[in-house]
Amino acid sequence: MFEKETQEQKDERYMRMAIQEAEAAFEEGEIPIGAIVVCRDRIISRAHNQTETLNDVTAHAEMLAITAAANTMGGKYLPDCTLYVTVEPCVMCAGAIGWSQIGRIVYGVGEEKRGYKRYAPDALHPKTTVTSGVLQEECKALMISFFKNKR
Amino acid sequence: MFEKETQEQKDERYMRMAIQEAEAAFEEGEIPIGAIVVCRDRIISRAHNQTETLNDVTAHAEMLAITAAANTMGGKYLPDCTLYVTVEPCVMCAGAIGWSQIGRIVYGVGEEKRGYKRYAPDALHPKTTVTSGVLQEECKALMISFFKNKR
Repeated sequence: MFEKETQEQKDERYMRMAIQEAEAAFEEGEIPIGAIVVCRDRIISRAHNQTETLNDVTAHAEMLAITAAANTMGGKYLPDCTLYVTVEPCVMCAGAIGWSQIGRIVYGVGEEKRGYKRYAPDALHPKTTVTSGVLQEECKALMISFFKNKR
Repeated sequence: MFEKETQEQKDERYMRMAIQEAEAAFEEGEIPIGAIVVCRDRIISRAHNQTETLNDVTAHAEMLAITAAANTMGGKYLPDCTLYVTVEPCVMCAGAIGWSQIGRIVYGVGEEKRGYKRYAPDALHPKTTVTSGVLQEECKALMISFFKNKR
């Protein structure tokens, strides 16, 4: 017999995939942040930060994942989707998440310096729910390791 | 003899080009917002809102103009550039403008409902200067005309 996966287990499973994306960013010399978008238990996009590779400050993981998700869905609003991202989104990404009307976001580690909660706490759509702290130690360890290497 | 163009005249001249972009958006059935980026009196990018055409909530005029400007400049930071945009940027665009470290933004009409000043007043880079109200009546008239047609 199989036990039904809990929401918490599911969130961790998807966050692990976002972490895989963050690891890919790390290997490319990018700040290691990864994101995936899930719709009804199906992964519809995955992306990682590519600001250096694309020479573009807008190429954050969340932005690329939202653009790709809308492409897959064929519509630009994503109310039935969940965005998993390893680090708390910045103001820009929170604004994009707001426009997308995404149903839920789940992030790993908070970002006190650049996170949206400090600078734009009301940027998300009022119907969007937020879960934080999922696998936060792993998400944080990647960031710390990256910046340690840069110094 | 030619009189030297004042900064005010220059701002109006560039804002007229941003309005031309907004008009192009209008004709495509897009919310009529246009943007251009200028670096040392040279136009390095121009763009208009394409969220419908590209089926992408992130395809605002400012985002496209910043991405294109970085591409032209060959570097992702734009401290010597000015962004002209017909309407006050939203939270997402203000976040992107912040990341780009653009030197100056000039916008036409304020946007009380969605503008960054209400939701993320500290999103811009601290060195970025802001001028507002340039040709605001023309910028506003386009928006009003667009939404009147939609009703």
